[in-house]
Amino acid sequence: MGDDLKMKRAERLVAMTQILMAKPNQLLSLSSLAECFGAGKSTISEDLLTVREGFAISKRGYIETLSGAAGGVRYIPEISFEEADKFLSGLAGRLSDKERILAGGYLYMTDLLFDPAVVHPLGLMFARVFRSERPDAVVTIETKGIPLALECAGALGVPMVIVRHGNKVTEGSSVNINFVSGSSQRIQTMSLSRRALEPGKRVLIIDDFIKAGGTTKGMMDLMGEFGANVVGIGMLMESALGDGPKLVRDYRVLLRLTELELSGRVTVVPVTY
Amino acid sequence: MGDDLKMKRAERLVAMTQILMAKPNQLLSLSSLAECFGAGKSTISEDLLTVREGFAISKRGYIETLSGAAGGVRYIPEISFEEADKFLSGLAGRLSDKERILAGGYLYMTDLLFDPAVVHPLGLMFARVFRSERPDAVVTIETKGIPLALECAGALGVPMVIVRHGNKVTEGSSVNINFVSGSSQRIQTMSLSRRALEPGKRVLIIDDFIKAGGTTKGMMDLMGEFGANVVGIGMLMESALGDGPKLVRDYRVLLRLTELELSGRVTVVPVTY
Repeated sequence: MGDDLKMKRAERLVAMTQILMAKPNQLLSLSSLAECFGAGKSTISEDLLTVREGFAISKRGYIETLSGAAGGVRYIPEISFEEADKFLSGLAGRLSDKERILAGGYLYMTDLLFDPAVVHPLGLMFARVFRSERPDAVVTIETKGIPLALECAGALGVPMVIVRHGNKVTEGSSVNINFVSGSSQRIQTMSLSRRALEPGKRVLIIDDFIKAGGTTKGMMDLMGEFGANVVGIGMLMESALGDGPKLVRDYRVLLRLTELELSGRVTVVPVTY
Repeated sequence: MGDDLKMKRAERLVAMTQILMAKPNQLLSLSSLAECFGAGKSTISEDLLTVREGFAISKRGYIETLSGAAGGVRYIPEISFEEADKFLSGLAGRLSDKERILAGGYLYMTDLLFDPAVVHPLGLMFARVFRSERPDAVVTIETKGIPLALECAGALGVPMVIVRHGNKVTEGSSVNINFVSGSSQRIQTMSLSRRALEPGKRVLIIDDFIKAGGTTKGMMDLMGEFGANVVGIGMLMESALGDGPKLVRDYRVLLRLTELELSGRVTVVPVTY
């Protein structure tokens, strides 16, 4: 009987860990957990202490407790510094491959940018950098940065907003602004549905690549039109190929492109803080 | 001492659950887990039995064991039928809101399609429907279906491939095909980088909405150009507004739009299998 009870506690701890992790950033009340497991609140509280200690071992996330009537617990996903460094070094190595050099001096990154196993840890890294800024939404521009922005938004527990290239019939009325992409030097239009973002929000801009910064500058201007406060800018990679001064400052990057020669040399390095 | 050991086992179970869930679909060897926890393989095996039983309680995912030299365990994320039904009903309710009706007879869905808390469970639902088809990749077309496709790919542990509207300089050489979007009746071009998909792959097509099916038909044709085998098609919502026969068959949907009147009536219903 004693053994049986202990077995039940072990399984309950596993199930509780699973429930918390399956709904990251979502507040679960003690009562709902108690009901779910048919146990008393004090039993659940004791279990949560153990879960907290277990999480402290693996450094992959932690439990946040909110007290009071509307209180409860929620799981905040994380990545350890050690794992992040290892992952970024590996990614920089995979990108520093001359087979990735495209005509025009571009680097092929799309396979990695669209791979959940790659963007998930990157999203956690950006979330760690910007969580303290308490963004209400993560903003990106279509298309290549979307998976990265979604993973970051998921890790922070906020919605994602995607700026489109031009008006779309399925978006309703929108705000449009013109911008000059530093890479192409062409004037383009970016567009965001009025419904997409309420006024006065704190937003985090996430994208895959910054060269001159014209696109990022355009997004900042567009956010101004929505009365939004840009509380952070995270770019997966910056070009350090002598493209001149950037049009934006105060952004954070995880990777830096330091060399790209069409003759067949490319170097990407991880950036540590 | 005995209590201390038991405490350690409980924390280890929590940490092991967390490690498995943090890397869904990735094979972890018993030796790597044993090393990680400084425990013997037999201890880890016993722990895994308990973890497996804990997972069976919550029905949110399970452990798959691969035996042999290259063996190990991996976590397969799931959503219970009960939770899926409840979630879909709630989503159908949120979409059946006359405030979402846009000029031209469109339904505003973007806020939900870009919210990680919405697309995550939807991705798990599609993964459950199509896992047995063993897709090598999830294919979508930019832009609104991307978060859905990414979540589905993540749940299946495969990469995502995004078909673009027209050539992009950052994609290298590409295959382009023309298609007629049934909604707009305009001829458009879709494009996929040659690097994006190796020949002979099994692919799952995921998108947010199917009306006449012209876009989906175009994606199937494009997959033919890559020698890919389309093993499934999942659409979040189908229009049942009398748009005539669809150009594709054998697709699965989670929601159906059964009524949309500009005067202010819209009905979306969940589809159960």
